[in-house]
Amino acid sequence: MTRWLDALDRKAGLRARAGLTRRLRPRAASDEVTDLAGNDYLGLSRHPRVIEAAAAALRRFGAGATGSRLVRGSTELHTALEAALADWLGTESALVYSSGYLANLGAVRALTQPATTLVTDAHNHASLVDGVRLTGRPPTITPHNDLPAVRAALAAAPTAPAVVVTESVFSVDGDLAPLAELHALGSAHDALLLVDDAHALGVLGPSGAGGVAAAGLAGAPDVVVTATLSKALGAAGGVIAGPAALIRHLIDTGRTFIYDTALPPATTAAALAALELARADDTGRAELAARATLAHARLTAAGLTAAPPAAGVVSVTAHGPAEAVAWAAACLDAGVAVGCFRPPTTPDPRSRLRLTINVGVPRHDFERALDVIVKTAPHPAPVS
Amino acid sequence: MTRWLDALDRKAGLRARAGLTRRLRPRAASDEVTDLAGNDYLGLSRHPRVIEAAAAALRRFGAGATGSRLVRGSTELHTALEAALADWLGTESALVYSSGYLANLGAVRALTQPATTLVTDAHNHASLVDGVRLTGRPPTITPHNDLPAVRAALAAAPTAPAVVVTESVFSVDGDLAPLAELHALGSAHDALLLVDDAHALGVLGPSGAGGVAAAGLAGAPDVVVTATLSKALGAAGGVIAGPAALIRHLIDTGRTFIYDTALPPATTAAALAALELARADDTGRAELAARATLAHARLTAAGLTAAPPAAGVVSVTAHGPAEAVAWAAACLDAGVAVGCFRPPTTPDPRSRLRLTINVGVPRHDFERALDVIVKTAPHPAPVS
Ligand SMILES: Cc1ncc(COP(=O)(O)O)c(C=O)c1O
Ligand SMILES: Cc1ncc(COP(=O)(O)O)c(C=O)c1O
Repeated sequence: MTRWLDALDRKAGLRARAGLTRRLRPRAASDEVTDLAGNDYLGLSRHPRVIEAAAAALRRFGAGATGSRLVRGSTELHTALEAALADWLGTESALVYSSGYLANLGAVRALTQPATTLVTDAHNHASLVDGVRLTGRPPTITPHNDLPAVRAALAAAPTAPAVVVTESVFSVDGDLAPLAELHALGSAHDALLLVDDAHALGVLGPSGAGGVAAAGLAGAPDVVVTATLSKALGAAGGVIAGPAALIRHLIDTGRTFIYDTALPPATTAAALAALELARADDTGRAELAARATLAHARLTAAGLTAAPPAAGVVSVTAHGPAEAVAWAAACLDAGVAVGCFRPPTTPDPRSRLRLTINVGVPRHDFERALDVIVKTAPHPAPVS
Repeated sequence: MTRWLDALDRKAGLRARAGLTRRLRPRAASDEVTDLAGNDYLGLSRHPRVIEAAAAALRRFGAGATGSRLVRGSTELHTALEAALADWLGTESALVYSSGYLANLGAVRALTQPATTLVTDAHNHASLVDGVRLTGRPPTITPHNDLPAVRAALAAAPTAPAVVVTESVFSVDGDLAPLAELHALGSAHDALLLVDDAHALGVLGPSGAGGVAAAGLAGAPDVVVTATLSKALGAAGGVIAGPAALIRHLIDTGRTFIYDTALPPATTAAALAALELARADDTGRAELAARATLAHARLTAAGLTAAPPAAGVVSVTAHGPAEAVAWAAACLDAGVAVGCFRPPTTPDPRSRLRLTINVGVPRHDFERALDVIVKTAPHPAPVS
């Protein structure tokens, strides 16, 4: 019985020929590489107060949460983090998950009833896509950031309940969804707006409260926010924030909440300490915005094609998958880690380098890294 | 636009009337309660070597992994843990996920092709059920541990690829699947066997290698094992273990692997340290088996209905959901935390108390806890 393994080998061969093989590159603790690939936007994953809070929780509570949230997994740290998240985001309530992925699966399901119209942006993250798949409802996938398409999708089923599903800052190209306009469109149709604020939390909005807050929608009763605690907060885990009635519904019925081991106490404490730091001081956010602007200016001045960044993600067009891999490898050889996005992990056939700003990287190293990206760029420069 | 909130409130009212409201009970670091509810089977979550390993990783790598496994999230700790898991479980390869839930979603999807017959046990965990749902294939759900039903399901589509999906030790009732028989049945039909070893890893098998190893199936090319690192290993995270070709396939194409932030370094280090401890010494496992036997004997001698435990889970029948809640609350008042399982989080209409053995609990406290469960039991004793 190894026919299935032969089939897997054949598929691997096809991927190899298409330049789509992926390789894990484990890093050491000090890998001497300039990070333009991770999501530690504010450099908080290594902040001494974050480390101390996590270490203290580890010693007090142990390594794991030892159970699901409804059994033994809820600690006073989870409660404190949930209260702090709700307060920061301006929502009635918040619920912490073990990952942003599972939070998104839970959020989409909780908002979907048997006849719901799900209107979902073509660039949405895999976890939102899987969330929609899990509902079993055929979604209406709208072209990226296309308001008329969203309006048409809602108008097509005027009496059905509807949910518009979007990211705020898109992970693929770093651009921003027109949240205020989506909300206005949705309101006219009694639709809910579900926003994955993963790449905006800590980065955009008043005190870093995210893209939803930046759009003036914090606490709106028809808006639900999800996020991961693994990016600007430098930890791990996910959150759903919204009306208290929704959170109660999730506690009673949410499968990816009920049947999953709670976030470890140390990670919970790390996220809470990072939240307090991110909320208290705008310096890191200002530096991040300045670096994003600089990166875009420098790369486009060199003839490269880069989307104007709304937050900490700068997407640079590559010729194709093989060229993107070669470019990223050349950067790494020169000591710079960049993200490399190729189909099928892109929503369109375009390959990209994805640069993410980490303000924990010394400014001088960051600027040198931009030089490296320009110098290693293929000639002629790729255009979209 | 608060109609949806009114609808949620109505549903909450219905749940309240049915006795199905759930409440989070956050615990403090030292909650003075005897734990018969968590999944820290070997008490490793608070083992000094586990804590030290996690604290060292925290200081070396920071709190979060800062990215997905294919971007910046893979550290040398992840590689070491994957090698140790594969070696322990006797598989060619292993891949670590951020949770057992996401590992199960990934495993079911990777094994499913467009025409695959999915044969899944009625008691399977929500994450396996959701994994099947995500494939979009209509599953054949077989009655719990019903070999003739599995045989019939396979015979119904003799030429289609098939996967038999089961837990080893079932989380609901603590009983064991007939793994060797399922494998033999599957082999006769060229079917794969996917086993969620969550509650057996570290508890059953040679050196704690799990239920699959205990059944003599370690390393079989048509068996795939998943598990969580949050139970006997006292940490968090998940794993898929199997042939190298499968792991390569998951790295290249697995959505819940590619699009999810890596397990934090500290949690990874904790799991690795716990694995080494669990593997090296059978003392904890022997004590766990002795306590499970004792619990079953003591409870049935008192007239209660309890399934014979195959590992560390002892399931005790309750009269109904409200009675189960009252019983568990009475235990907690007397200082004993037990699990309380009611529909819809049970696969059948039966409510249960679920006791899980934690050998980190002093023996004397454990025995006192059994007394408490008996003394607080409703009269007449519930029968199945
Ligand atoms: C937009 C978006 N949503 C959700 C997630 C998933 O969050 P997590 O990594 O915590 O599972 C990510 C990234 O990982 C993301 O980029
Ligand atoms: C049988 C089984 N499978 C999978 C899981 C999910 O693992 P995790 O909690 O790591 O998501 C659990 C429990 O949580 C479980 O009991």
